[in-house]
Amino acid sequence: MAEVVAGIDIGGTNTVIGIVNHEGDILIESTIPTRCQSTFDGFVKTLTGEIERLLMEMGHEHKLLGVGVGSPNGSYNLGAIVNAPNLEWKGILPLCKEITQNTGAPSVVTNDANAAALGELLFGAAQGMKNFVVITLGTGLGSGIVVDGKLVVGHDGFAGEFGHVVAKVNGRQCGCGKRGCLETYASATGLRRTAFKMIADNNQPSMLRNITYDKLTAKMITEAAKSGDPLARAAFEYTGLILGTRLADLVAILNPETIFFFGGLANAGELLLDPTRRNMEEFLFPVFRGKVKLQVSGLQDKNAAVLGAAALIWEELKKMQV
Amino acid sequence: MAEVVAGIDIGGTNTVIGIVNHEGDILIESTIPTRCQSTFDGFVKTLTGEIERLLMEMGHEHKLLGVGVGSPNGSYNLGAIVNAPNLEWKGILPLCKEITQNTGAPSVVTNDANAAALGELLFGAAQGMKNFVVITLGTGLGSGIVVDGKLVVGHDGFAGEFGHVVAKVNGRQCGCGKRGCLETYASATGLRRTAFKMIADNNQPSMLRNITYDKLTAKMITEAAKSGDPLARAAFEYTGLILGTRLADLVAILNPETIFFFGGLANAGELLLDPTRRNMEEFLFPVFRGKVKLQVSGLQDKNAAVLGAAALIWEELKKMQV
Repeated sequence: MAEVVAGIDIGGTNTVIGIVNHEGDILIESTIPTRCQSTFDGFVKTLTGEIERLLMEMGHEHKLLGVGVGSPNGSYNLGAIVNAPNLEWKGILPLCKEITQNTGAPSVVTNDANAAALGELLFGAAQGMKNFVVITLGTGLGSGIVVDGKLVVGHDGFAGEFGHVVAKVNGRQCGCGKRGCLETYASATGLRRTAFKMIADNNQPSMLRNITYDKLTAKMITEAAKSGDPLARAAFEYTGLILGTRLADLVAILNPETIFFFGGLANAGELLLDPTRRNMEEFLFPVFRGKVKLQVSGLQDKNAAVLGAAALIWEELKKMQV
Repeated sequence: MAEVVAGIDIGGTNTVIGIVNHEGDILIESTIPTRCQSTFDGFVKTLTGEIERLLMEMGHEHKLLGVGVGSPNGSYNLGAIVNAPNLEWKGILPLCKEITQNTGAPSVVTNDANAAALGELLFGAAQGMKNFVVITLGTGLGSGIVVDGKLVVGHDGFAGEFGHVVAKVNGRQCGCGKRGCLETYASATGLRRTAFKMIADNNQPSMLRNITYDKLTAKMITEAAKSGDPLARAAFEYTGLILGTRLADLVAILNPETIFFFGGLANAGELLLDPTRRNMEEFLFPVFRGKVKLQVSGLQDKNAAVLGAAALIWEELKKMQV
């Protein structure tokens, strides 16, 4: 009987479920809408029902050893999702307990960026690395930090909220209730805000001027920059300035070997990485200059969040055996 | 035969040597001037000679198991001191190799703040804690970070340079060659700079107006603030604003249980901690609010740097036995 785990990636819109083996191959995968049920209990029932359906579809020769979940505001220590801004159910949601009740298998949760870091460590470009950081650039900015080969979870299980360091005192309004958080500048949403501010502040022509804020995507800005649009390029330069400055802080604190970028905005590649690297180098404490690699995730084309969530539960099962 | 180690604290002016037992008691201690010799080799010879003299003085019933050193810019990975701004010998100084050649005992070095963190963990107020940070506030600002019960050294052995995160773009000139580093605001020197800037910017009367910059000390500003001098109090408030903002970043990244303050400026106690805590709380990601303790080190009155350096080599000897 082949041993497998379920890797779950809960997002604001969709939840992806994958059945994953020891080697990190996704054997089968499906997606359910996160808002499929009005109650959280209902959502977990649909989720675990879908896991069972996938196992059935694969035939009966697979044994489910555990369920790993990456979720916005997932707390490893509590086994719960805690007041996630992008989910409609508030409070402390006892996710792992309910999954175990429904499936009989152990379950563990962490935030989605931590899951991506574990995925990178076990199946991606960070294999064998001891000290690295994965930055996820989507609607927001998340970070998963690995120190000495282990994921940093912190005292309350909420380490890695790098998206909410102060980039600018009294800066842009953030979904967390503060102002000036890094993710209001360095994320897909942050890039859109920067492009719109530049349209307002400057007179230079740009193909972005005839798009509404609601329709504008980071992908459109990326395409515009690639085709030479000066305003779009300036938006990337500014994003790199803000992100590079704060990455220099992160390096001063943690001295990582590599910083990986994952998620939608990471598809911009060197368009984002080049200004980020240049600005980071300028603000780096001299001893670190030229030493820290910035690169796109090795799992950028794969479903890293599912792989990471699977990696999380494989790691947990190893600990249980010790 | 009782087993002991030597704990060494190398400072810009003096080097303190202590012989320390398993329990963290300093059995005997002495101080040599760091500039006792013109060459680095000469300095290490004087240092190891002094260790031998101390052991002789204690009688022959003690066996030296190892030598732990805390030093500015001490690199754990290289076993060396690397371009320390406050030492006159530049380049990569192979400290541990030379100590071992002279004493026959294994040696390990880390930066002074890391040593203080280890001291706090083994003998201070952090006993039993898994995630905490020690901030040393002296001429500069150093930090020792403990994650999951272990000191964070980073990929190149230089983690914990929290004094060189960017507090202000194009801010005050720093000894490291950059501008606006946190330690140019939050340190004994930073407090002096702030007091002088306030004397220049404002007209309010202050007992600090008749002291030259060279004669002004953080202790004088502390005494003035305690006696109600409004300018001195404003200088602490500003220091707390800058330090609190960046500590909020540190918490977002690492989620520590407690942040300890150690060193000369930490003697100011709540005069510094109160504005720092207030400002940190304001900039904290909501999930961390009210959770992180700021307190003065449990070793503030003891020779924590020597204890920490001793703790470092005890830890190293444990690893060697594994």
